Amino acid sequence: MKALVVSSPGTLSLQDIPVPAHAGECLIRVRFAGICGTDLQILEGYAGFTGVPGHEFVGTVEAAPDDDAALVGKRVVGEINAGCGVCRWCREGEKEHCISRSVLGIRDRSGAFAEYLALPAKNLHEVPDAVTDEQAVFVEPVAAACRIFEQITLDPAARVAVIGDGRMGLLVAQVIKTVAPNVTLLGRHREKLEVAASLGLATARSDAPVDQSDRYDVVVDVTGRPSGLTTALAVVRPRGTVILKSTFHGEAPVESWPIVVDEVTIVGSRCGPFAPAIALLASGAVKIDPLISLVAPLSEHQKAFAVARQSLKVLLRI
Amino acid sequence: MKALVVSSPGTLSLQDIPVPAHAGECLIRVRFAGICGTDLQILEGYAGFTGVPGHEFVGTVEAAPDDDAALVGKRVVGEINAGCGVCRWCREGEKEHCISRSVLGIRDRSGAFAEYLALPAKNLHEVPDAVTDEQAVFVEPVAAACRIFEQITLDPAARVAVIGDGRMGLLVAQVIKTVAPNVTLLGRHREKLEVAASLGLATARSDAPVDQSDRYDVVVDVTGRPSGLTTALAVVRPRGTVILKSTFHGEAPVESWPIVVDEVTIVGSRCGPFAPAIALLASGAVKIDPLISLVAPLSEHQKAFAVARQSLKVLLRI
Repeated sequence: MKALVVSSPGTLSLQDIPVPAHAGECLIRVRFAGICGTDLQILEGYAGFTGVPGHEFVGTVEAAPDDDAALVGKRVVGEINAGCGVCRWCREGEKEHCISRSVLGIRDRSGAFAEYLALPAKNLHEVPDAVTDEQAVFVEPVAAACRIFEQITLDPAARVAVIGDGRMGLLVAQVIKTVAPNVTLLGRHREKLEVAASLGLATARSDAPVDQSDRYDVVVDVTGRPSGLTTALAVVRPRGTVILKSTFHGEAPVESWPIVVDEVTIVGSRCGPFAPAIALLASGAVKIDPLISLVAPLSEHQKAFAVARQSLKVLLRI
Repeated sequence: MKALVVSSPGTLSLQDIPVPAHAGECLIRVRFAGICGTDLQILEGYAGFTGVPGHEFVGTVEAAPDDDAALVGKRVVGEINAGCGVCRWCREGEKEHCISRSVLGIRDRSGAFAEYLALPAKNLHEVPDAVTDEQAVFVEPVAAACRIFEQITLDPAARVAVIGDGRMGLLVAQVIKTVAPNVTLLGRHREKLEVAASLGLATARSDAPVDQSDRYDVVVDVTGRPSGLTTALAVVRPRGTVILKSTFHGEAPVESWPIVVDEVTIVGSRCGPFAPAIALLASGAVKIDPLISLVAPLSEHQKAFAVARQSLKVLLRI
């Protein structure tokens, strides 16, 4: 099959490689895949991953174990963590934290920038007709945004800031707004903030000073940059909550005494539930059309990744 | 009055200065004061404080406003934050976060390393006879340990680690143990770990590797060092909680992606409730005798601070 392969940090090439082994799992023909900030980080060495990256996708099941034969032919999206099934975490239904987990396109599992990928049947969610292929590619990142609701009780009256006007920021802000309408997207890029405004989001410059008394109750860092935590601490109120969503390669200098003095709570937040994400996309509460900067075939991966670095969402049509 | 004065970072001297202004507040004759890690940080420039440091004390009320005349002659300890009384935080009873607060010996208020200090009457707590002067000096740091119970629901079955075998670590571990008996003090100093063991605490080296499956549910950082957060993240389990107690001057490099990938919650924690702290000291559940390395008069401040840097608690007899 054709696939994009990371051989070493910074090198991505289109190669012909074998279809992934899928004993006991489903084999999925990928229709579209999305380029995410994590993929860009992986190209720079994050998580030490080599192989086929990509973890946001929609595809069609081509083969399945006998017990899951009903899935064949279905259009699906998939949860990206596959656990060992026997450890404490897997037994508690939290395969996202299985120590020996594989993660699609991130850790020990061939990813979605390829004609085929394999995942366990229990990871798959059928996509309803009301959700287009392009929307379905966004289920995984929208699910990651929905994870916040599983971790904190978000007061509908809370003043919330989302820092980062990239693809993930625009999704997180829309998801937050379904519960807490008073949400502001903080960013540094005029064009992206204009996209946010077109989605009905309040916006502000992330480098504008925030008065002590105007600090936010909840701040979500989706900058994808090492400085994100420091920026978040600068705008959160005492006893407020910072949700950290940014993963990246490398350390950042952090002054941690304001966390103590202001008694801030910081919550690391990763993968989330697919069902509410599919519902939010189907209902139109989360809009994705203005976020798509480019749809390109695998063969145009160089252009696709260059655009993804500068712009919003790039989809690969496979 | 005689007082220790920080004129600029690193310079501490015994001086004769006026008794602090105390209109509308109580004037307290200090009996004993304790040297805390924050005081050592202040000497190195933390919080930009100049003036009389010191915020752990026991003293006798010598003068009070008419409404609080009953306090005169009482032996008291005192909460260290004094709020404006009118802002949102003060109205909600959280003077610790008043933007224009003063803090005894830390911010805009003359501290306890002096013959006299002033505090509002509402900050004072009478010390029962069952609590000695030496014990009473520990009420403020024990209260800070009790703050943890106000911030998280500590499961009695939780496996807890306290990182830092200094004076604060030995108090926090004893306080935690009253709720969650499975607590281990992690440190690097043989003598201090022996003191911990004499207090009935389980101990381990903080630089020993911790197996993935042995990581702790809750980790409290009281190292007072910039590296504390990184050390805590290395031993907390996925979806575990890190309580940050360390304040210090300066930045530390932090890799924040493990916070996200392991979905760790970090809780900044500062001042706490005095009533349970007094009760824990009175009952003997928190012991302080093995923690006192030296009791010295103000005139021996150089020796006192030198010992405080190397050892456990140093009390100034005033």
